[in-house]
Amino acid sequence: MKTVQDYIRTIPDFPHEGIMFRDVTTLFADPRGFRMAIDQLLHPYAGQPIDRVVGLEARGFILGGAIAHQLSVGFVPIRKKGKLPAKCIEQAYTLEYGEAIVEIHDDALKPGERVLMVDDLLATGGTAEAGIKLIERLGAQVTGCAFVIDLPELGGRAKLEALGMDVHALCAYEGH
Amino acid sequence: MKTVQDYIRTIPDFPHEGIMFRDVTTLFADPRGFRMAIDQLLHPYAGQPIDRVVGLEARGFILGGAIAHQLSVGFVPIRKKGKLPAKCIEQAYTLEYGEAIVEIHDDALKPGERVLMVDDLLATGGTAEAGIKLIERLGAQVTGCAFVIDLPELGGRAKLEALGMDVHALCAYEGH
Repeated sequence: MKTVQDYIRTIPDFPHEGIMFRDVTTLFADPRGFRMAIDQLLHPYAGQPIDRVVGLEARGFILGGAIAHQLSVGFVPIRKKGKLPAKCIEQAYTLEYGEAIVEIHDDALKPGERVLMVDDLLATGGTAEAGIKLIERLGAQVTGCAFVIDLPELGGRAKLEALGMDVHALCAYEGH
Repeated sequence: MKTVQDYIRTIPDFPHEGIMFRDVTTLFADPRGFRMAIDQLLHPYAGQPIDRVVGLEARGFILGGAIAHQLSVGFVPIRKKGKLPAKCIEQAYTLEYGEAIVEIHDDALKPGERVLMVDDLLATGGTAEAGIKLIERLGAQVTGCAFVIDLPELGGRAKLEALGMDVHALCAYEGH
C-alpha cells in the first residue's frame, strides 16, 4: 500500500534555486492520499477533546477545513497581516531575510479552549511558533501541532518541542 | 434554529470605505455553523458523481478541503499566480482596477472528470469565471459552482449562468 509520502512530489528549485520543494498538491488531489493524510493527522488525538481546529494560511486551510469537519468542530484561520476583516492580535516572526506578521481575530478563541493547530509543512517552525503564541495569547491551549511533512534539519520540531508542544508529522525529509 | 446567514457577521468599511464585508470566519468557527454550511453546500449534488473538488484561494480552501473529505474525493487548488510549484496553466481576469491571474497545475485534472468548484463568495464572478475556464481548459467539466454567499447585484450569478453553469449559494445580500 502507498504511504502518504508516496503521493508527495518534489519540485527542484522552487521557489528559488537549491530548494527541493515538497509538493503536497498531488497528495491532496488523490482521493486515497487525501483521506489517508486527514486520518493519520488525527490518529494521535483520538479520544482527546478538541474544541477548535486552527489552520495556517494557505495550505493549512485545506487540511484544517477537512479536519474540523471530520471532528464536527469549528475552524479558525491564522492569516498573513491585513487579510482578516475584524479586530486582530498580531505576532511577528523572523524569516531568512526580514520578518513577517500573522494575525488571528481577537474573538476567534475563548480562554480554555483546546486547539489542534495544523499546517502542511514544519520547516524552521517560525510560522508555527507565531501561531502557538497567538492561540495562547487568547487564553486557549494547544493540544497538538500536526503537520504532513517535517524537515527536522531546519529545527522546527526542536523549537516547538522546547515550547512543550506535542508535534505530530506524517513524514520527514532530510535536508531542506 | 439559526440559519447559515445568522452566523455571518458584517464588517463595515473593510477592506476600504463603503464596503460591507461579509465575514464568514464566524460561520466557520462555530461547530454547528460550519457543519451546516458544508452540508448545505452539498445538498444539490447528492447522488451526482463528483470526481474532484476545486477550491479557490484562500477561503475556498477551507470549504473545499472539508467538502472533498466528506465526499472522499481529491482536492485541487486554484491559486494566485506564482504560488503553485509545478507546471501551470494561467487565466487572467479583470478587477475593478487592473487585472489578476490565477493558476492551476496542468496535470491537476484529467479530461472528463466532473468537478465541484467552491468558494465562500460570489461577487462579480471574475475569479469564478477564470476558475471555470481553467477547469475546462484541462478537459474536465464543472458539475456545479457552490458558494456560501451570493451578491446578486454584482452580476456574478448572471455571468456564470450565462456560461451554462449550475450556481448554488446558501444566502444572498443586497448591495455590495
